[in-house]
Amino acid sequence: MDIVMVGAGNLATHLACALYEQGYRIRQVYSRTKESASLLASQVEADYTNQVEKLCPLAAIYICALKDDVLPTLIPQLTAVNPNALWLHTAGSIPMDVWEGHVERYGVIYPLQTFSKHRKVDFKQIPIFIEVKHEGDLGTLDYMAHRLTDKVYRVSSEGRKRLHLAAVFACNFTNHMYALTQELLDDYGLPFDVMLPLIDETTQKVHRLSPKQAQTGPAARGDKKVMDAHRKMLADKPQLECIYQLLSDSIEKMKQ
Amino acid sequence: MDIVMVGAGNLATHLACALYEQGYRIRQVYSRTKESASLLASQVEADYTNQVEKLCPLAAIYICALKDDVLPTLIPQLTAVNPNALWLHTAGSIPMDVWEGHVERYGVIYPLQTFSKHRKVDFKQIPIFIEVKHEGDLGTLDYMAHRLTDKVYRVSSEGRKRLHLAAVFACNFTNHMYALTQELLDDYGLPFDVMLPLIDETTQKVHRLSPKQAQTGPAARGDKKVMDAHRKMLADKPQLECIYQLLSDSIEKMKQ
Repeated sequence: MDIVMVGAGNLATHLACALYEQGYRIRQVYSRTKESASLLASQVEADYTNQVEKLCPLAAIYICALKDDVLPTLIPQLTAVNPNALWLHTAGSIPMDVWEGHVERYGVIYPLQTFSKHRKVDFKQIPIFIEVKHEGDLGTLDYMAHRLTDKVYRVSSEGRKRLHLAAVFACNFTNHMYALTQELLDDYGLPFDVMLPLIDETTQKVHRLSPKQAQTGPAARGDKKVMDAHRKMLADKPQLECIYQLLSDSIEKMKQ
Repeated sequence: MDIVMVGAGNLATHLACALYEQGYRIRQVYSRTKESASLLASQVEADYTNQVEKLCPLAAIYICALKDDVLPTLIPQLTAVNPNALWLHTAGSIPMDVWEGHVERYGVIYPLQTFSKHRKVDFKQIPIFIEVKHEGDLGTLDYMAHRLTDKVYRVSSEGRKRLHLAAVFACNFTNHMYALTQELLDDYGLPFDVMLPLIDETTQKVHRLSPKQAQTGPAARGDKKVMDAHRKMLADKPQLECIYQLLSDSIEKMKQ
């Protein structure tokens, strides 16, 4: 089963490397820029191109890991190269039917993880959510996903969109809490590093307890005195004060 | 240096056990309830009491790890037992001068961590912030803190209050993001466990990158289309929608 990887960003890179390590042949890598196409291609013994019209027409599977706003605009050109292949995208918030009308065999492979350029991830630990138009292609997609991880789930486009929303809270907003923490510490001349043991333990806790059970802090205790003092300390940062208030209210409400 | 531990909650338990393991003699444990006093006492070969007037008057150091609203009310009674000893509290948001007028020698030992009942923590990884009224007591306190961890910092009451506020963002609010994630997943019949690899990686990232550098997601990309779709999905949860909007705005602002 030869694969063409369309895209050479973080997700494309990690996915292509993991598939390559599992014995899949990556025939070609496409990217808008020659540099990133060739960089990934060299890691997985593939050819590369930065021109859609030079896309290899002979692969069995095309995996498109492109930016959310780029994918829909490129689909007509891409699929014209090999309309009989299995076409997959990797986006949480793009429905499967984005392929509709362009090809017959299509689906989605969505690994739920945040990928960084210089950080190796262990795919075995990553849940992969798959969706496929024709049941006839389920075997191929399911087998591929299972080569990468034991945690393979079938999920609809609607379910995937909801997973993606939940992931914004679990990952993007959590990271923003760290960024706000750093902002506060910077102001006080304290290094962010002092928070890492606390951050690690907070994460470890939800491996054993539900987040509701693990909740601590002034809002969870209903400690108005501390919350008032904290809000006063944020008086010169209205947006932070507003976030403090809203999240404290939300914690108190959840406790009830 | 004999110690009396006043309190038998999570922090008191972890601190007493760590000091005991480092060779400190815990003479006595006080708690409002006999059960919790005796439970901790048995772990550190100490006597116990649930009556303030039976507090041992012979210790060199009294460590008060009580609830924030309880400590100030108990100080007069507690300190009367041994006004010449070194009295320490462990609270992030209570200033050192809460002891003023009751005893001469006092200070604070504040370990920056979230403690759970049934979870052993490695004190070596925990930053401890100390403050002391008389320089003459600095050696005793600094030595004790260094027995527990290499990361000992001197910090003023003001600095400690600010650390505590920052910790609310890093720990309590982060945990609440997980709780909101669970709420969303529950609605969709998806298990919280599928998020753990993503949560772990999000945490790992800020060990290498600053949180600002590590920020990803629709708000960081300025992806209005996805954000609009997400807000629509939250239309029946006004508080969640409000949190989504506020945090997305805050991320966008920080990117600028």
